[in-house]
Amino acid sequence: MGSKLSTLLNKFRDGKISQEALLEALPSYMSESLGFATIDHHRELRQGFPEVILCEGKTEKQVGEIARKIVDNGSVLLATRATPACFKAVRRRVRSAKYNELGRVITANEKHIRPKGKGTILVITAGTSDIPIAEEACETARLMGNRVDRLYDVGVAGIHRLLTKSEKLRTANVLVVVAGMEGALASVVGGLASVPVIAVPTSVGYGTSLNGIAALLGMLNSCAAGVTVVNIDNGFGAGYAASVINRN
Amino acid sequence: MGSKLSTLLNKFRDGKISQEALLEALPSYMSESLGFATIDHHRELRQGFPEVILCEGKTEKQVGEIARKIVDNGSVLLATRATPACFKAVRRRVRSAKYNELGRVITANEKHIRPKGKGTILVITAGTSDIPIAEEACETARLMGNRVDRLYDVGVAGIHRLLTKSEKLRTANVLVVVAGMEGALASVVGGLASVPVIAVPTSVGYGTSLNGIAALLGMLNSCAAGVTVVNIDNGFGAGYAASVINRN
Amino acid sequence: MGSKLSTLLNKFRDGKISQEALLEALPSYMSESLGFATIDHHRELRQGFPEVILCEGKTEKQVGEIARKIVDNGSVLLATRATPACFKAVRRRVRSAKYNELGRVITANEKHIRPKGKGTILVITAGTSDIPIAEEACETARLMGNRVDRLYDVGVAGIHRLLTKSEKLRTANVLVVVAGMEGALASVVGGLASVPVIAVPTSVGYGTSLNGIAALLGMLNSCAAGVTVVNIDNGFGAGYAASVINRN
Amino acid sequence: MGSKLSTLLNKFRDGKISQEALLEALPSYMSESLGFATIDHHRELRQGFPEVILCEGKTEKQVGEIARKIVDNGSVLLATRATPACFKAVRRRVRSAKYNELGRVITANEKHIRPKGKGTILVITAGTSDIPIAEEACETARLMGNRVDRLYDVGVAGIHRLLTKSEKLRTANVLVVVAGMEGALASVVGGLASVPVIAVPTSVGYGTSLNGIAALLGMLNSCAAGVTVVNIDNGFGAGYAASVINRN
Amino acid sequence: MGSKLSTLLNKFRDGKISQEALLEALPSYMSESLGFATIDHHRELRQGFPEVILCEGKTEKQVGEIARKIVDNGSVLLATRATPACFKAVRRRVRSAKYNELGRVITANEKHIRPKGKGTILVITAGTSDIPIAEEACETARLMGNRVDRLYDVGVAGIHRLLTKSEKLRTANVLVVVAGMEGALASVVGGLASVPVIAVPTSVGYGTSLNGIAALLGMLNSCAAGVTVVNIDNGFGAGYAASVINRN
Amino acid sequence: MGSKLSTLLNKFRDGKISQEALLEALPSYMSESLGFATIDHHRELRQGFPEVILCEGKTEKQVGEIARKIVDNGSVLLATRATPACFKAVRRRVRSAKYNELGRVITANEKHIRPKGKGTILVITAGTSDIPIAEEACETARLMGNRVDRLYDVGVAGIHRLLTKSEKLRTANVLVVVAGMEGALASVVGGLASVPVIAVPTSVGYGTSLNGIAALLGMLNSCAAGVTVVNIDNGFGAGYAASVINRN
Amino acid sequence: MGSKLSTLLNKFRDGKISQEALLEALPSYMSESLGFATIDHHRELRQGFPEVILCEGKTEKQVGEIARKIVDNGSVLLATRATPACFKAVRRRVRSAKYNELGRVITANEKHIRPKGKGTILVITAGTSDIPIAEEACETARLMGNRVDRLYDVGVAGIHRLLTKSEKLRTANVLVVVAGMEGALASVVGGLASVPVIAVPTSVGYGTSLNGIAALLGMLNSCAAGVTVVNIDNGFGAGYAASVINRN
Amino acid sequence: MGSKLSTLLNKFRDGKISQEALLEALPSYMSESLGFATIDHHRELRQGFPEVILCEGKTEKQVGEIARKIVDNGSVLLATRATPACFKAVRRRVRSAKYNELGRVITANEKHIRPKGKGTILVITAGTSDIPIAEEACETARLMGNRVDRLYDVGVAGIHRLLTKSEKLRTANVLVVVAGMEGALASVVGGLASVPVIAVPTSVGYGTSLNGIAALLGMLNSCAAGVTVVNIDNGFGAGYAASVINRN
Repeated sequence: MGSKLSTLLNKFRDGKISQEALLEALPSYMSESLGFATIDHHRELRQGFPEVILCEGKTEKQVGEIARKIVDNGSVLLATRATPACFKAVRRRVRSAKYNELGRVITANEKHIRPKGKGTILVITAGTSDIPIAEEACETARLMGNRVDRLYDVGVAGIHRLLTKSEKLRTANVLVVVAGMEGALASVVGGLASVPVIAVPTSVGYGTSLNGIAALLGMLNSCAAGVTVVNIDNGFGAGYAASVINRN
Repeated sequence: MGSKLSTLLNKFRDGKISQEALLEALPSYMSESLGFATIDHHRELRQGFPEVILCEGKTEKQVGEIARKIVDNGSVLLATRATPACFKAVRRRVRSAKYNELGRVITANEKHIRPKGKGTILVITAGTSDIPIAEEACETARLMGNRVDRLYDVGVAGIHRLLTKSEKLRTANVLVVVAGMEGALASVVGGLASVPVIAVPTSVGYGTSLNGIAALLGMLNSCAAGVTVVNIDNGFGAGYAASVINRN
Repeated sequence: MGSKLSTLLNKFRDGKISQEALLEALPSYMSESLGFATIDHHRELRQGFPEVILCEGKTEKQVGEIARKIVDNGSVLLATRATPACFKAVRRRVRSAKYNELGRVITANEKHIRPKGKGTILVITAGTSDIPIAEEACETARLMGNRVDRLYDVGVAGIHRLLTKSEKLRTANVLVVVAGMEGALASVVGGLASVPVIAVPTSVGYGTSLNGIAALLGMLNSCAAGVTVVNIDNGFGAGYAASVINRN
Repeated sequence: MGSKLSTLLNKFRDGKISQEALLEALPSYMSESLGFATIDHHRELRQGFPEVILCEGKTEKQVGEIARKIVDNGSVLLATRATPACFKAVRRRVRSAKYNELGRVITANEKHIRPKGKGTILVITAGTSDIPIAEEACETARLMGNRVDRLYDVGVAGIHRLLTKSEKLRTANVLVVVAGMEGALASVVGGLASVPVIAVPTSVGYGTSLNGIAALLGMLNSCAAGVTVVNIDNGFGAGYAASVINRN
Repeated sequence: MGSKLSTLLNKFRDGKISQEALLEALPSYMSESLGFATIDHHRELRQGFPEVILCEGKTEKQVGEIARKIVDNGSVLLATRATPACFKAVRRRVRSAKYNELGRVITANEKHIRPKGKGTILVITAGTSDIPIAEEACETARLMGNRVDRLYDVGVAGIHRLLTKSEKLRTANVLVVVAGMEGALASVVGGLASVPVIAVPTSVGYGTSLNGIAALLGMLNSCAAGVTVVNIDNGFGAGYAASVINRN
Repeated sequence: MGSKLSTLLNKFRDGKISQEALLEALPSYMSESLGFATIDHHRELRQGFPEVILCEGKTEKQVGEIARKIVDNGSVLLATRATPACFKAVRRRVRSAKYNELGRVITANEKHIRPKGKGTILVITAGTSDIPIAEEACETARLMGNRVDRLYDVGVAGIHRLLTKSEKLRTANVLVVVAGMEGALASVVGGLASVPVIAVPTSVGYGTSLNGIAALLGMLNSCAAGVTVVNIDNGFGAGYAASVINRN
Repeated sequence: MGSKLSTLLNKFRDGKISQEALLEALPSYMSESLGFATIDHHRELRQGFPEVILCEGKTEKQVGEIARKIVDNGSVLLATRATPACFKAVRRRVRSAKYNELGRVITANEKHIRPKGKGTILVITAGTSDIPIAEEACETARLMGNRVDRLYDVGVAGIHRLLTKSEKLRTANVLVVVAGMEGALASVVGGLASVPVIAVPTSVGYGTSLNGIAALLGMLNSCAAGVTVVNIDNGFGAGYAASVINRN
Repeated sequence: MGSKLSTLLNKFRDGKISQEALLEALPSYMSESLGFATIDHHRELRQGFPEVILCEGKTEKQVGEIARKIVDNGSVLLATRATPACFKAVRRRVRSAKYNELGRVITANEKHIRPKGKGTILVITAGTSDIPIAEEACETARLMGNRVDRLYDVGVAGIHRLLTKSEKLRTANVLVVVAGMEGALASVVGGLASVPVIAVPTSVGYGTSLNGIAALLGMLNSCAAGVTVVNIDNGFGAGYAASVINRN
């Protein structure tokens, strides 16, 4: 929960402000309008994590302004698919912001991260080219308070690379499989694992990979039971879902 | 675990059979070949639930024979997308088999169900036509040892039907949202819930619903974070994934 | 109606020119050929609004020349999907032209706008990234003589942002819903409203959003009755249709 | 509004029941659960027309039961895409039900239809094969209180058939254009009309008509401004939208 | 026929070279290998027009070399989809080459054009943005010896622009209709014309125009009998087919 | 031209009826309304062949009634995609009607066929399964007054079957190539022929033939210049276009 | 080679017939016209196996007649996708014909099979439902003179079923992998094998399996190098290609 | 096999190192982790050729580092789809590396190439624009130890260019056909050849070529038996498969 709202509620509980004052103050703590954006401060209360900024499609200035409001509200900042220019616009307003270039993620207010995950989230990739999306998932899970482990470039063309790491698969609490091309790794992992498996198709490949559609279809039709899937290149969504499962 | 394999291992642990005898016997307990099928008895040990029969594409006789072997192995039987004719073929071989006509599911050996789920799995549908797929999910979750609750026909065209049931959403441990047409219910539920949400697109609709593609795309692109998706009409997959999450 | 044609007809009515003179003059007032374009001056008479320039696919010079002819004809100028370079080419020929950069719209001859709308047209967006398309709709409706109101970034991931504005939905005469990703906002608004709802899918999103196809399918399959849809990113079409409905 | 709810509210207004009694009674008048369906009685109050039954995907018994509840509630009954078997199931429960075989529509409680439309709704088809969908639109509009006129088989292959009827186009208040194959009729009508035009693509055609996708794309890309579109074969949606516009 | 081959055959007919000499010489007149290209000089003899260069996908140097060989062979040169850089590479080798920038076409050896067409080929466009493709068709038809006429920007949104030109439609011998967006113009022209109509879908449009797929489907499903279609943006193919029909 | 209209005009020319009588009578000779159909009698005058009935999507009774009117009007009758039941409905009304079962075509009034074609139309198929579509093309061309020749099952898997028939290709005036699967025959014929080639993709094939889409794409992308294409399985369209070209 | 043609050539070699007689007789041995079919007897000479009948799309009588001619020519008969009715039609003409119901294959003249394969062709399936397509491949390979081995239902959901059979993979000379759903088995086998792997996607699955498109895309995008692919459900094509490779 | 691993094994065979030492050393010879990549050194042993680098999607630094490891391991280096910048990064680390610009391929350690192919691999293209993909296939086959021959620009629009080269087709041991547009060349070659044919669709073409989908579908649906297909533009895959077949 944003620390500002938390402070307000504590004041009320401690008798420092009246019920009338609380009710009058609440709306502006719930959502905040910037004209071009209506920030959902209530989300943290409702879902356990504040609004996340998807930078794509927004101007740099819009990203910067929304970031400032989230940080001012005392919430952890997570902005995904951020260009270096976006980061510059954010840092101009939030001096403590950091940028993970590989995962294209901006973060700030990390001191507000609270450990919530029960076990480890293991993020696996089929190839080297899938790493940027995997890093987006890792950063999201980390910001949401989880231990994260990585196992990269273990695709089925050389399946012994995966089989020799079966210990890692057994000890993790949630698995995230990131793969492009035909996405077969999700089925193989799904057939071995006894914990939840979230598959992320990536746009890695060419020709009939159709920018990730081939991997997506492969994962949706996985012969291994219980694999669930997110949008193509949606590392954020996978990291988020894994976190919700891990704190369940 | 199939009770037969369990008995064998207990015998070894209690010193009733030698290591040699155990190793010799194990392979036939791991997988069993019927010529047209190679039953994966090891799956129960590896993943906590025995092989499930997808009846579609198999002859009735094949379904019947595989069912008999699973039941003989002492495992819970679950067969999905079963026609009445399939059921007849199974019951001829497994007298205790039961048939859920609405969900097209055959079950047997229910005495072997062991409670594993920590909380309740709530299955929600947008419309009346989505119920068969929802029932497949419910039956799967029940067979895997979960409490299951239902909330049917609460699609967003009359959103107060959902909002007045927000208590149910808050108290469940995992949510399964089953919807055809545009599948918007998944986004609305995803925006309200703080527990894992699994979305099942159904082929309900006509024209540009494209047999469920519209609902699938809607769910994959949900603006609510952390919704994960399974194949169109895959009630089984959703029930399975929800069960794995619920026992996590 | 273009003021030139109007003047001509008035002259005839007032007996200042003969029927012969009128009939001889009419064709050149109906359509005008520039070689690369055949401007439909008759449109204003027939449909209540002059030809609008879609800049995409035309050279800057072509846009400039057509704009000049429309303005010379005494009609309101509306040019959509205009780049800054297009605007420069127009302003060189039409000094009074104005440019809405966000909505990529060029306008001129605004003095000829005549109020026609009976009520207010409310334009709603799901996210911040949908605003450029929404602005195209707003400008079109304004040029066609309507009162326009805006409600931005109220997508279903935080549905209370919309529900707390239900007053706005109730008092508008026509609603335009602009949304990318899964486009679920159209269904929610469609389920609440009692006035016409026009849905505009946008190309906002990535992966399986398929450049707006996901949102389009979502809107076409809306479970809310009576939602009608226009082409992806077609803010102009939505603003135009809303205007025709609002003057009906 | 359903006459039952209307009666209740009048009783309260007239002082015949207390506020407490009203509030206690209201919920069951708002929505009603049949287990497999949650009927939205509030819809009539909110949107001016009661819930409509889409028969496809429902069992005949389900259709029959929902129909009975709507009629018992004192609302006009409209059930679309009804097979003769559906009709039988309804008539067994609602003796006064009628069946329009061509349009596959079941109706009842027609005495509750109240005239709401300001002008005439004109429904136009390109060919003879488009008539069933057109009839669905006509019936919907009629049940919602509109005067309806028809102009059938006037596609652009023989455009004089349309041009000689331009009087009809001029005097209608809303136009519904129903066309399969390439759907060009929508563009031609859209270019002539000054009132709202709703286009309905149909699945009439073969090969690359792709079950209506060709007509849908044609209508979405219409070069005539302001044409809005509904799902393939969605005569109901077009009739509904036209009615909402006509009462606006 | 290439003038070189023509000269050779005449020599043989006139007894200036022996049959043996002719047969020995023929192969090198039939096709010529450049390593990266095998030029089909026999095509002119077989089909009445020499090989045409599609510049797209070839390096500028390759285009230049092939052009030189065709010109050296005494044939008319036509190179389509040529960038200015391609033209430079050609002119370095063929001084007399000319460039039609709008239609992106390089030509040379125009003195070898021989009039073959019986009537006029009329090229019609729906909009201004379709003109580049139309010009490619016009140039192709002109190089193949036809009289060409143009009628531009007469799309169905203002159908009187076409109807007032019906004289042109009646007097042409072949019609080529070039249109993007929904491509409805092809159906309208096809319904009016009594001569062959070739439809060219263009990639003009946005969103669901799908880069010309919408127009293509519209034309393939035209309700007007006998319209035939070529690939999207294939002005060359339409001009070529029209020429073959016109000389038939 | 329908003989009835012809008789009327001759009467006027011969002074047997007045101009007033002619003008009064004309409209009912131009188009005729059956309620469910508006028959375009003017088409024969405008395009040289009367309206053709596409039976698919019409009821048998509708087909029968339209057929009767066309025959009564003195025109040649052609009805395509006719089931045996359609034929029965027609023969009940038009005793002289004939049925080509293979091509699914009903014909009548053949005495009104007038020879118009200058040369022979050659219809070629790749396989045996393409013959029904080819026969539809043959019948159409025959009814429109052409000599028709056939060359069946000469696909490129055994290309010598085609090459040994090159004489037939050389002497025909128009070629129609009917092929399913990959449709390569169109390219090979297109590369050999010097007369117009119309390609008809058929839905013959399975899997990725996608009901004819593979053949369609193959034909649209033919490397042979000037091949034009009609809709999948549109034998009628090809026969019609070939006839218009052949009389050109 | 058909034994008839073989006999003829031997006669010539042995001086029993003259060159003139041979040349006169040859054409009718090369291809044979049945009107609806042009049988390519030369194929056996050219490609090592006679023409194969694809029954789908042909009438039963056509299949029967072509089969008779192939058998009369002394060639091995293979007819695929044959219904029981097709088989009846064939057996009426070819008494010795046999029918493999599972693989839907008719065979005859098996005495003419000549062993050609160097090693064993191993056909592997992911599931039980893929067996019919696998059997088509097996029969084709057997008729073309190969030893065939089978390994069924060893999909990646239980990967140990495949890994424990690695001996079979190592000793085969060509591998055919038949899989529906996501088709991941092809990648896993492709990553293990050192001999040619041919992948056959099947239409087994539902929803987004899109009738085999998902498996096809998975196989085309396989991360394992050198896997080649045939059409969906094309067991024949895979068996044929494997045979050509095995005799190479 | 990488020479390093080979040396190690020889040492053990020759008694120079103990079994314990071998087993301890083996894992690091099997696969090697770079953090962002897990190099599969075991592949050469298992499949006869070392891991190949697909440069697309990797950073230049990643490509350089992986290349260095492969070369250090004593294996032949093959890196495909390499930009000039990739090549620079590799050469900085591997001085002997060479770059084939046309085929976009980096190679090194060519001294380790061992002749394995039994016959010649012939690579054929339909057009000049297909050459880059063909060169990728040629280089792959050459590095894998094969004799390679080329036949370029012999597409079916001028089929005599292919037929006059039938000698080349007859003497090769494996054929690779590279074609864009409609890809018909694969069917024609497949109908003539008696050796394995691998078809490579290319993205050459425009409009409905759909970036190679048209050619892909054409090849998958080839009426010539036994043609197998690889991904669009996958010259590497074709060269690899051809090599495996050629050494079989």
